[in-house]
Amino acid sequence: MSNSLNQQILLKSRPVGEPKETDFALVETPIPEPGEGEILSRTIYLSLDPYMRGRIRESKSYATPVQLDSVMVGGTVSEVIKSNHPQYHEGDFVLNFNGWQTYGVSKGDTLRKLDQNLAPLSYNLGVLGMPGHTAYSALLDIGQPKAGETVVVSAASGAVGAVAGQIAKIKGCRVVGIVGSDEKRDFVVKELGFDVGINRKTQELSPALKEACPNGIDIYFDNTAGAILEAVLQQINLGARIALVGLISEYNAINPPAGPNLTPLLINRALIKGFLVSDYQHQFNDFITDVSGWLNSGTLKYREDVVVGLENAPHAFIGLLQGENFGKLIVKVKI
Amino acid sequence: MSNSLNQQILLKSRPVGEPKETDFALVETPIPEPGEGEILSRTIYLSLDPYMRGRIRESKSYATPVQLDSVMVGGTVSEVIKSNHPQYHEGDFVLNFNGWQTYGVSKGDTLRKLDQNLAPLSYNLGVLGMPGHTAYSALLDIGQPKAGETVVVSAASGAVGAVAGQIAKIKGCRVVGIVGSDEKRDFVVKELGFDVGINRKTQELSPALKEACPNGIDIYFDNTAGAILEAVLQQINLGARIALVGLISEYNAINPPAGPNLTPLLINRALIKGFLVSDYQHQFNDFITDVSGWLNSGTLKYREDVVVGLENAPHAFIGLLQGENFGKLIVKVKI
Repeated sequence: MSNSLNQQILLKSRPVGEPKETDFALVETPIPEPGEGEILSRTIYLSLDPYMRGRIRESKSYATPVQLDSVMVGGTVSEVIKSNHPQYHEGDFVLNFNGWQTYGVSKGDTLRKLDQNLAPLSYNLGVLGMPGHTAYSALLDIGQPKAGETVVVSAASGAVGAVAGQIAKIKGCRVVGIVGSDEKRDFVVKELGFDVGINRKTQELSPALKEACPNGIDIYFDNTAGAILEAVLQQINLGARIALVGLISEYNAINPPAGPNLTPLLINRALIKGFLVSDYQHQFNDFITDVSGWLNSGTLKYREDVVVGLENAPHAFIGLLQGENFGKLIVKVKI
Repeated sequence: MSNSLNQQILLKSRPVGEPKETDFALVETPIPEPGEGEILSRTIYLSLDPYMRGRIRESKSYATPVQLDSVMVGGTVSEVIKSNHPQYHEGDFVLNFNGWQTYGVSKGDTLRKLDQNLAPLSYNLGVLGMPGHTAYSALLDIGQPKAGETVVVSAASGAVGAVAGQIAKIKGCRVVGIVGSDEKRDFVVKELGFDVGINRKTQELSPALKEACPNGIDIYFDNTAGAILEAVLQQINLGARIALVGLISEYNAINPPAGPNLTPLLINRALIKGFLVSDYQHQFNDFITDVSGWLNSGTLKYREDVVVGLENAPHAFIGLLQGENFGKLIVKVKI
């Protein structure tokens, strides 16, 4: 690996079902030059997130798909190497969208400057970045938690779920987290302070939820859809709110699976609402203020799962879709 | 049939799948006596509505199920025969809940007095009653229609759908009605003024919706769930609102069928919300004022499907669940 070349991971083929490492390829290309108003940055941290599975499909999801032989997209924390933009200087740390590559060129007005004295830089990809903001706005805006209500969170030890569940605790709710291992169950209860953890791989969901939610379910923060949503719907209360934030259980599906029967929604006059964080830019400052405060006071805990080396991104991403990560998955890019 | 006995239709067995006439039985019993604060009334009109299928299931829906060998429930327009309540007098017309019987005793404070000079009495079971109120509040509160938006209504020639679609037209929307026959399709377009009608029995839903909704679907007023909901979800716009008002397609199902895949909800940050009219009593006066006004000005059209004779209620109810009625289904009770 050379320091004078840009290492890039390209999408080589559209995965059918679970992505394979051979759907990606590492190539080396010349480091690009920034144009007028642009900056060149080297990637320090790359964020890996479940939504990326949607971006490598043929069909349009939130945005146009990543094209074949193009660099995989992704949020990054980077250091400015060259700047043709008056607001950024060599050595500045920025939040940008280099994707899966060691260097990238960005337009200066699409960046956010980062202060590494406020929080570890990588936090800007997790608890203080898109996943944290997702947790904050989806829980507060769609969930509307009130003290004493019961909140269920799926993928509860993940980047979004862990923050959502802790904010629900801060708001005075009973919080039940659904996870994929005993280790994660211990983590959400002992480390994060959830009231109950359920290991969906060893426990039967419906009876476990019934026991964990003796007063029914008022809010479901749904990162997964699938069987968990179906089980939750059977136990929702009148006026329940379900924030549909992710569909992890379906991202690798070749054909979209059927959804849950919606009778409980009608009977309970409950709602399911889809969420995308980009609709909530107006809440960004509130989010940063609140979550930084909770982090600094120790009220809110944060765990990262750091993989070292850009070349390991495909393997780590494949594992993320299978729940193999433990905490917010980040790639530390060595150059 | 004797005038001095109460004719009642009892639930004899819980239907499995489609109800059969033998699930019901007509009996004659003594006319009851009203107690303190109660009135005795004779039923003039009985409302037949799809929700009744839910009330004869084993399991609790909105309310406890009708017990075996009990009188079938239902909203009625009645004439007071004897009154032990100071506000009601012999000869008054009232909206009450006698159910499927020719006479009933009601508590005086559960009634509403009707003025037959304001509208035909039977309208209080339809366009000016529960179905109309459902259409009004679900469309306006969950749908939030804005001029220029596209609204799809299922069971569009029915008691609820016909009113919902016409209110959407009044609000300046493009309105597409899904119905079950060519005759009903002509009715919603030529009589009710919908922009397009789709006969779900002869037209393929997805292409028909695509052609009818060139700008996508902003609001879906869902009386049916099932395949129509699934097809609509494929064509919703960003921020679409789906009012889940009925599940007609599923009422006769022995096991709850799977629902639609919810990916479009996430991608479009759309919502599905269950609706029950009893949550909207605070809007009742607004509803009556607005809908009476539209009726009187001829802006809103109303069609009834009147079946004569209480003994025909089971047959008519079975047909209602199969879409055989045309307009609001009412039983005129002869005594």
